Amino acid sequence: MSQILPASIPATLFHERADAIAEAARELAQHGWTPATSSNFSMRVDADHAAITISGRDKGKLGRDDIMLVDMHGKAVGTESRPSAETELHTQVYRHWPDINVVLHTHSRTQSVASRLFAKDGVVKLEGWELQKAIRGHTTHESALDIPVFPNTQHMPELVAQVDAWIESGKPLHAYLINGHGIYTWGHDMAEARRHLEALEFLLGCELDLRRLNA
Amino acid sequence: MSQILPASIPATLFHERADAIAEAARELAQHGWTPATSSNFSMRVDADHAAITISGRDKGKLGRDDIMLVDMHGKAVGTESRPSAETELHTQVYRHWPDINVVLHTHSRTQSVASRLFAKDGVVKLEGWELQKAIRGHTTHESALDIPVFPNTQHMPELVAQVDAWIESGKPLHAYLINGHGIYTWGHDMAEARRHLEALEFLLGCELDLRRLNA
Amino acid sequence: MSQILPASIPATLFHERADAIAEAARELAQHGWTPATSSNFSMRVDADHAAITISGRDKGKLGRDDIMLVDMHGKAVGTESRPSAETELHTQVYRHWPDINVVLHTHSRTQSVASRLFAKDGVVKLEGWELQKAIRGHTTHESALDIPVFPNTQHMPELVAQVDAWIESGKPLHAYLINGHGIYTWGHDMAEARRHLEALEFLLGCELDLRRLNA
Amino acid sequence: MSQILPASIPATLFHERADAIAEAARELAQHGWTPATSSNFSMRVDADHAAITISGRDKGKLGRDDIMLVDMHGKAVGTESRPSAETELHTQVYRHWPDINVVLHTHSRTQSVASRLFAKDGVVKLEGWELQKAIRGHTTHESALDIPVFPNTQHMPELVAQVDAWIESGKPLHAYLINGHGIYTWGHDMAEARRHLEALEFLLGCELDLRRLNA
Repeated sequence: MSQILPASIPATLFHERADAIAEAARELAQHGWTPATSSNFSMRVDADHAAITISGRDKGKLGRDDIMLVDMHGKAVGTESRPSAETELHTQVYRHWPDINVVLHTHSRTQSVASRLFAKDGVVKLEGWELQKAIRGHTTHESALDIPVFPNTQHMPELVAQVDAWIESGKPLHAYLINGHGIYTWGHDMAEARRHLEALEFLLGCELDLRRLNA
Repeated sequence: MSQILPASIPATLFHERADAIAEAARELAQHGWTPATSSNFSMRVDADHAAITISGRDKGKLGRDDIMLVDMHGKAVGTESRPSAETELHTQVYRHWPDINVVLHTHSRTQSVASRLFAKDGVVKLEGWELQKAIRGHTTHESALDIPVFPNTQHMPELVAQVDAWIESGKPLHAYLINGHGIYTWGHDMAEARRHLEALEFLLGCELDLRRLNA
Repeated sequence: MSQILPASIPATLFHERADAIAEAARELAQHGWTPATSSNFSMRVDADHAAITISGRDKGKLGRDDIMLVDMHGKAVGTESRPSAETELHTQVYRHWPDINVVLHTHSRTQSVASRLFAKDGVVKLEGWELQKAIRGHTTHESALDIPVFPNTQHMPELVAQVDAWIESGKPLHAYLINGHGIYTWGHDMAEARRHLEALEFLLGCELDLRRLNA
Repeated sequence: MSQILPASIPATLFHERADAIAEAARELAQHGWTPATSSNFSMRVDADHAAITISGRDKGKLGRDDIMLVDMHGKAVGTESRPSAETELHTQVYRHWPDINVVLHTHSRTQSVASRLFAKDGVVKLEGWELQKAIRGHTTHESALDIPVFPNTQHMPELVAQVDAWIESGKPLHAYLINGHGIYTWGHDMAEARRHLEALEFLLGCELDLRRLNA
């Protein structure tokens, strides 16, 4: 299915975003973080549009044609392709923070297991790890980094409302887990979003290891 | 040993199936799911025949010549090559579900360990995981997904009878484990069969992790 | 340092062996089974000689020039290169079983940890695993497979004597672990030796997993 | 930002060092030991200078232009690039041991978790592992190898002082961990430094495994 672009979006701009998403997806798939066609990835195109992965594609074999345009409420623009069911969680981030340009959602075993383990607390507290410094605004291992864990639901508006409530409470939010599911994180550009994702995958894995060691 | 095809099967059709099997096998071998020449893979060719891996070959180095033709009772057709000892478990699936076209059997460490751990229950119950939605017909993490674990035996008819008994009981069946051995799963096409396999490998791994964490 | 061959050994024969060893070493190194220049690999060249890896080389980058000739008592032949300190453990196998042509010694984390865990028992008992059938002469998961664990020593004759004592006791021997060290296994050809190595690495990993799960 | 070299350092010498660092970094990144732009690597250039990775670069994609020159107190020389915050820990090693030419600092999950687990003891004691022989000067598994674990701090002079105190106490030092952070190790050349790093990663992993097994 071909993508028809609004007049305000040059083809080169959309292709640039689509290629960047496809490249990142392939590399993240190689880590095993996108099993069984799960996970989705997006980039802001302009104030009103984002490019996002089409639902159900194998993330390890993604190309430009597997990316589509949506508006900031998650509706398809200029295509009959179906965006991920979770597209609203991406556009929520773009609406809330105008300087965020990339949103990544993956589904690694570590992320899924951590989400189940910490679901009863509603949060993963990361403390004492040097790699917390990979998260924007964190300059020392001595601060704490809270990653909320929201209950899973197939009804997107409920998930959106949970994220909104956390943001409105005034607590910082760099990423969140959904129980039994995976992680959402983001950044000002692809490099920052991937640094956040890599750091959080690493830190969640360390926390699981410490618990396995009863430490 | 060369493969002689029945007049009803064009060489291009058989080669297409053989190449698809060999490609999938090489990719699954790279994950480490086919240790020591274990595992076997097949595709339906027509109503009466399937293409299947020849016994004992290194699955990481599979080519078209490592695939042979069998009838729907697992007997070699047009070749003196020996099919896997477990070929009857493949043809049983093709006989039972005419719209299933691919059967995959792998032997990962996670699958083997899970089969031993859950053997006493006779089933692995998967609940609360978003990735259950990767299994055909599952649209929510809230439903349960039961994967039976059958006792191992070197006598194939016993294994066939165990699978038949489960099917005849009317319970859904998307995959099964054999104790101390590995997993069987299938799909309408290669993409679906691989999605099922990837999702189940992931979910079994998550369940083992939760138990290691006493969670 | 160049290798001078005895008149009885054609250069093509030695090169064939050296290339086969180097290829296997590179592939096993990719699995992470040869950390920090550890591990050694050999192939029989004729009744009186074997080709073996030179001491201290990076097994992931091995080429033909990293292989040397030794006699059946582990002494260098036609070269000033130094063979592995453990060469006598290879030639012991060739002397004892004239139809064994390949010996592999690796040093994976699973092998090292298993050797420490089972050292007090002096043996790893493998039972109930389908993959035991990958070991020559084993046709069912119902038989038991015993892998002895010998105490480590830097004094090779002691290790040789321990292996001799096991063989002389009449118990079958397909492989052995050395405590805190790694595994030795072998085969009639490279394919069989690698199948044994892959199967044992897998089965030791499964046994460790079951213990981690208190199963 | 371009690098201007002092007259005493030929461009070919600096490029040789930069290329060697970049190649090692890429290979270590492939193991997953440098998550989220963490880790840093250096080589001595002459008695007064070292080449070191520029802060914040993705270690998996490092090239010659990601390496800069510093003096032996960690100050940038001939460039406005910013060296890693931890550069002083590298130059401390070069100042103390004139025959050490390579320093490697990585940040694997095993290293981070081990640093937290052993922080209360202040040391990891490695005993009974054959791979201890990969550390310079160790000829048997029977000796003990102590790797200190220092508390983490964002104030470099404190870290430098902790390392100095250990050295001045007369105890051997081949590597150290920083709590919640990673490992520092070194060697006379790149091959030795990498052998030390690989061996220590392996041995720390084995120690964690033994504890997971309550062994």
